[in-house]
Amino acid sequence: MLELVETGLAEIKYPERTPGLVRPIAYTLEAGGKRLRPLFVLAACQAVCGDAERALRQALAVEMFHNFTLIHDDVMDNADRRRGRLTVHRRWGAVQAILSGDALLTMATQYVADCDRSVLPEVLDLFNRTAMEVYEGQQLDTEFEKLDRVTVARYIEMIRLKTSVLLGCACRMGALVGGADDVVQQAMYDFGMNLGVAFQLRDDWLDTFGDPAVFGKSIGGDIVNRKKTWLYITACREAHDQMARAYERGTTKGRLVGGVKKIYEQLDLSCRCDALISEYCEKALESLDRACLDAESCDWFADLAHKLSSRAK
Amino acid sequence: MLELVETGLAEIKYPERTPGLVRPIAYTLEAGGKRLRPLFVLAACQAVCGDAERALRQALAVEMFHNFTLIHDDVMDNADRRRGRLTVHRRWGAVQAILSGDALLTMATQYVADCDRSVLPEVLDLFNRTAMEVYEGQQLDTEFEKLDRVTVARYIEMIRLKTSVLLGCACRMGALVGGADDVVQQAMYDFGMNLGVAFQLRDDWLDTFGDPAVFGKSIGGDIVNRKKTWLYITACREAHDQMARAYERGTTKGRLVGGVKKIYEQLDLSCRCDALISEYCEKALESLDRACLDAESCDWFADLAHKLSSRAK
Repeated sequence: MLELVETGLAEIKYPERTPGLVRPIAYTLEAGGKRLRPLFVLAACQAVCGDAERALRQALAVEMFHNFTLIHDDVMDNADRRRGRLTVHRRWGAVQAILSGDALLTMATQYVADCDRSVLPEVLDLFNRTAMEVYEGQQLDTEFEKLDRVTVARYIEMIRLKTSVLLGCACRMGALVGGADDVVQQAMYDFGMNLGVAFQLRDDWLDTFGDPAVFGKSIGGDIVNRKKTWLYITACREAHDQMARAYERGTTKGRLVGGVKKIYEQLDLSCRCDALISEYCEKALESLDRACLDAESCDWFADLAHKLSSRAK
Repeated sequence: MLELVETGLAEIKYPERTPGLVRPIAYTLEAGGKRLRPLFVLAACQAVCGDAERALRQALAVEMFHNFTLIHDDVMDNADRRRGRLTVHRRWGAVQAILSGDALLTMATQYVADCDRSVLPEVLDLFNRTAMEVYEGQQLDTEFEKLDRVTVARYIEMIRLKTSVLLGCACRMGALVGGADDVVQQAMYDFGMNLGVAFQLRDDWLDTFGDPAVFGKSIGGDIVNRKKTWLYITACREAHDQMARAYERGTTKGRLVGGVKKIYEQLDLSCRCDALISEYCEKALESLDRACLDAESCDWFADLAHKLSSRAK
């Protein structure tokens, strides 16, 4: 299925008149990544109708949408690198990143709409509704940067919108195009959505507790940027004064990260975060059960859920 | 019909969770403008089926799309003011302008898709194809800034993509949703498209020859920015050395604009540009004839074409 995705992405037809517009799009799509979202679309479609390819265009659309958000997010975060290469806005400038991102969003919409007429309104509604939620998540993420305190509930809501709904959308999209009924579609959505929360919590965990040699990114970025992750929020609530002191004394990156991690360890946050991840993974598996897939498909999704929840990179 | 548009825009349902995301959208949509594009959608629908309201959602979608491009264009051009108010990125910052613009594009797609299932694939295809062309036009416009020479043909192609196709799309959208056949749809598209070229040429003419008291914008901005309009391109071709000297000697804005306008007058460019505008207006009217609308509708569109081609603001 991964080959289907890669071939499909490589075969995308771009407008020929304006190579400058499409070069950053091809650059972004060819950079790889886990291809989790399109795989979810294909696997869900395969699971409900035995033919993954029926949802190929929608799988590509979801991956294109995801990459559009990365291009614009990197402009907004002023990020230098992504997947080991320069970001689009660092290589071609912010103007080009905005415009090529817009074009990629419209291309994603073209791809998602290339389905059977009978499901087109539902497919579009799912896609557009999800897109709006992703923007809302990005909005909350931006607003949280300026806030002193964020509750855990608000944080979970933010990552649900910013990250998880697109995984839910991917699973539901495959089931929808594959012809599943609404109960199965909703079960698959809930599976992807809960797994998405586990996935993002694991991402945050890795940023602090990951093995730099395996994770591939430098460790402690969230701590340095005071990113309001579950770890940070919980530590501030349970050891407010200690956290304040750690940030006061953390005059170098090494000292700051070391000091904050020490507090996290005192509060046993690594294990407690792991437990929360397992909780969402369990919720995902319960949702998966409700979809009543055949044993093979069910095992595939369950296996992936466990791998993503405990991944080291 | 203008009231339909204004009421429709005022009644848009925004997501409630994230007021920061939607405030810039409402701010932009309420700022007014000519509402030409949604009026074209409604009038074309009215002309072919007698019921303008049938295409209301699509009319709003086209206006939303137009405003999305304005929000992002203003970031890309680093523009300060639009319609007499601060631009979104000047008021809320570039990050917010990018994100709210993205949301507005997705909302436009939601609105355009809210039509009869029987025409949905065609409606979407028209909308997305047009959107891609608009980005291509913006791309060419950006690239022209860095070029020394641009041909008139390339310039016309650029304004066709950046401005005119959306007017063509608006006219065709109304006809399509109103149930017209492909011949009528295409005739209406060609009408809007040719009128769009006339409209943009007139815009360029006004920037140089307009009456500041009536036009509402300051005169000569294109000259100062060496914008490669039809006037500039033609003057550079026919009086290259004189133009170079005018830019050398134009040490103040007043002297520069005065010097360049003098060359334009020697070359009779005001009249010749007017003649070109009339040519495109004529093409638009010929296209309109092919649509075989009833006399009243035909007069309405023809009247508007004449007004837009000779407008003073």
